[in-house]
Amino acid sequence: MQTSERAHRRTAYFVSDRTGITCEMLGHSLLTQFEGVRFAEITKPFIDSIDKAKALVHEINQAAEQDGARALVFCTLVNAEIEEALIGANALVIDCFQFFIAILEQELGLGSARVVGRSHSADNLGDYHHRIEAVNFALSHDDGISTRDLDEADIVLVGVSRSGKTPTCLYMALQYGIRTANYPLVAEDFQRNALPPQLHNLRRKLYGLTIQPERLQVVRNERRPGSRYSTLANCQFEVRAAEALMRQEGVPYIDTTRKSIEEIAATILHDTRLVRHVY
Amino acid sequence: MQTSERAHRRTAYFVSDRTGITCEMLGHSLLTQFEGVRFAEITKPFIDSIDKAKALVHEINQAAEQDGARALVFCTLVNAEIEEALIGANALVIDCFQFFIAILEQELGLGSARVVGRSHSADNLGDYHHRIEAVNFALSHDDGISTRDLDEADIVLVGVSRSGKTPTCLYMALQYGIRTANYPLVAEDFQRNALPPQLHNLRRKLYGLTIQPERLQVVRNERRPGSRYSTLANCQFEVRAAEALMRQEGVPYIDTTRKSIEEIAATILHDTRLVRHVY
Repeated sequence: MQTSERAHRRTAYFVSDRTGITCEMLGHSLLTQFEGVRFAEITKPFIDSIDKAKALVHEINQAAEQDGARALVFCTLVNAEIEEALIGANALVIDCFQFFIAILEQELGLGSARVVGRSHSADNLGDYHHRIEAVNFALSHDDGISTRDLDEADIVLVGVSRSGKTPTCLYMALQYGIRTANYPLVAEDFQRNALPPQLHNLRRKLYGLTIQPERLQVVRNERRPGSRYSTLANCQFEVRAAEALMRQEGVPYIDTTRKSIEEIAATILHDTRLVRHVY
Repeated sequence: MQTSERAHRRTAYFVSDRTGITCEMLGHSLLTQFEGVRFAEITKPFIDSIDKAKALVHEINQAAEQDGARALVFCTLVNAEIEEALIGANALVIDCFQFFIAILEQELGLGSARVVGRSHSADNLGDYHHRIEAVNFALSHDDGISTRDLDEADIVLVGVSRSGKTPTCLYMALQYGIRTANYPLVAEDFQRNALPPQLHNLRRKLYGLTIQPERLQVVRNERRPGSRYSTLANCQFEVRAAEALMRQEGVPYIDTTRKSIEEIAATILHDTRLVRHVY
């Protein structure tokens, strides 16, 4: 391996005494801001003893030697002794909490609990139940498979097949405890030029997803290669008809073509002002 | 409202030019460390113009007045002018990125891109496709509904009905692009005292979930009140039999009773050393 290559490789560790999800997400977000470095990202949850921290230091040091550059360690460790053990590693250790906790303690005039695992835990069973119920609701109301209790949905996504409805529904249910349903728009709806009858009383809860026909064709063709369903002509027809129908019926909609699940969900939640729970 | 109550209420805003997911998660994690304050948490994504920032300042100031205490604003705004507009608000403004970006720029000897929305975007279509396929795989291999391509799973969760398999599978697929399947353990498996035949060749991919019978009874009873399925005796029998079977077959398992979806997923990924993609 050449020196110039080695200098541009770094191993980043996301280390936590609990799930590591917060520092993994923050660290990953930060690293996406740096081009020209290849980051190997490794999450190390449940580092909750000094022995585990010492074993991790050993692993970090090996990675640093291989990379020819010290590692990056993003951590959310509440126990100071465990963090001290880490500081001995050949790494830049960045505590993702400390800086903010100090500012907040001063602002609020309160000491922080300094207790591990407050976030991403199942401490509050009521909250947790709400979330699981939202996931179950999304599953049992996916793709129009059941219209039972459909009026209990917080939101009902509509759109042509493969426009992104299912992953978006699951994401909103899992991340935010929102009761989502989704209903496909199909050929007979376009022929009748009307929304499916099952949705007539839910108009205020409807939100549409659309997608560029060229992208839709690629996605559908992977699923059912060479079918009529996957032709560009059919994709163009369906998308045009679905958009016309949604406009006619006053259903707001967004183009999902270049959007991630997070972006679609954030846009919908923002537009509809649905209340999100953060878990 | 009494002064003492007012002093203990704060409105926290999570503000971003993009989805707001990173600062929402970090801010929420930080706030869970402070007891004795009731936080109202509000996410404001897509604050990507000075006009939007000014309108938000107005909203923040109203909340601060109602609370009788300035607001908390956690932000990940890449555009400095937009952030400056926010700093005029009656709020403690905490930039979730700046502090770390400066440290990383120095460490890496590089300027950061300072481009919005690198994380949680669909920039990389290949990555994105991988994730959607993982979600589709999880859905089509939920609860043993299909054994087709089951050997393409990265992991197959097993356990009794309502032990947490489905939400965990969906979470691992959505968050980390892992191809998950799940298969229920039922009465006939316990009678035969053997794993379902469909799983015989997948032993190395199996991971079990178990749950305390008392908790299982509560969960099942909500779903099918008064059924034999939901009796404590049946829950005790199934859990005991499933645990015995998993031990006999060398399937590792964890107790999900007091764990959140994140904690279950983090534990499994950690134990199995599955490679996670972070989106």
